[in-house]
Amino acid sequence: MTEPLVIGVAGGSGSGKSTVVREIVRGVAPETVSQVRHDAYYRNFDHLPPEERGAINFDHPDALETELLVRHVDALRAGVPIEMPVYDFRTHCRQPETIAVHPTRIILIDGILVLAEPELRNRMDIRVFVDTDPDVRLLRRLKRDLADRGRSLDSVLRQYERTVRPMHREFVEPSKRWADIIIPQGGHNRVAVDMLVTKMASILAAA
Amino acid sequence: MTEPLVIGVAGGSGSGKSTVVREIVRGVAPETVSQVRHDAYYRNFDHLPPEERGAINFDHPDALETELLVRHVDALRAGVPIEMPVYDFRTHCRQPETIAVHPTRIILIDGILVLAEPELRNRMDIRVFVDTDPDVRLLRRLKRDLADRGRSLDSVLRQYERTVRPMHREFVEPSKRWADIIIPQGGHNRVAVDMLVTKMASILAAA
Repeated sequence: MTEPLVIGVAGGSGSGKSTVVREIVRGVAPETVSQVRHDAYYRNFDHLPPEERGAINFDHPDALETELLVRHVDALRAGVPIEMPVYDFRTHCRQPETIAVHPTRIILIDGILVLAEPELRNRMDIRVFVDTDPDVRLLRRLKRDLADRGRSLDSVLRQYERTVRPMHREFVEPSKRWADIIIPQGGHNRVAVDMLVTKMASILAAA
Repeated sequence: MTEPLVIGVAGGSGSGKSTVVREIVRGVAPETVSQVRHDAYYRNFDHLPPEERGAINFDHPDALETELLVRHVDALRAGVPIEMPVYDFRTHCRQPETIAVHPTRIILIDGILVLAEPELRNRMDIRVFVDTDPDVRLLRRLKRDLADRGRSLDSVLRQYERTVRPMHREFVEPSKRWADIIIPQGGHNRVAVDMLVTKMASILAAA
């Protein structure tokens, strides 16, 4: 069996990263892609009293159990299924259940920090960074957090200023330099997604 | 006959644009690509006395006869061969001879300003911007101009400060926003070039 192709998709919060990932998976057929999301690997903060969990910096690399994700990527590359954690973002706790991810020809890893972590990016064959203007990213994040997550405007803006923006500038933005291709204008960039899908399809066809 | 695919490759002076173009052409086989370079379309300055030609701003869009290139791209798209101008960069004059370019399935247009010109970028199916750090670009330009073109350090630096840098910031850099994909670290980015080549090969195979 040939080594699977490992693709990493990074980009700031609100960059349209998830749309790019969804379009890629749809383009090559979901059953050929083992999808692992870095944000499923947030650490379990159940030892902290609930009132302290609000102060956790979820945009810092230390909040993620990257070492477990690395082991999982290696398992998938070796043809071994993994149990991806399930995270509850309301309570900041890892859930008892897991999601089985089976090894396939393509392993797709996404998350804001996947190119910032050397152990992750060194395992990737194609490194993608989805690059979207900061104001557009804030706009999307506002819409999403206010509409879908029922948070207050004040709390969203405070988190943005305190952690999202500084961590973006410190970790996410500099990680762009590791990208093989940069997809501007995020989400619905058909030409770029089509190019990635064509590349993956050609690898699958050569199998 | 299907419409040819039009690809534009932009990027600053010294970005590694020409290497990307060369690798693409080699990857898909030269006979399938009609290659037109924007910098072959510099205007003829033979009406100016030679001593005044040194003051021309060759990094400004007005120095190029883009309207002729646009007509040539349209001709190639319609299956009609063109005669690409030949420019003498020492005398700043268009030469009497031309180069015949025959229509093929892929039309590749490159130049620092090809994404800055709406009439050009509107004709492209894939818009590529080769993005390289400014200091690396200056370094490459210095090496090239001092070694290959026998110019003095002083003259290269003066031109860089007077026209190359300000025009880059005014026209080239902002044109990045029109790109479908951005290729970082220019020249020898194998993953990105391979992706472009695979896409073009799939279009040729579908013909």
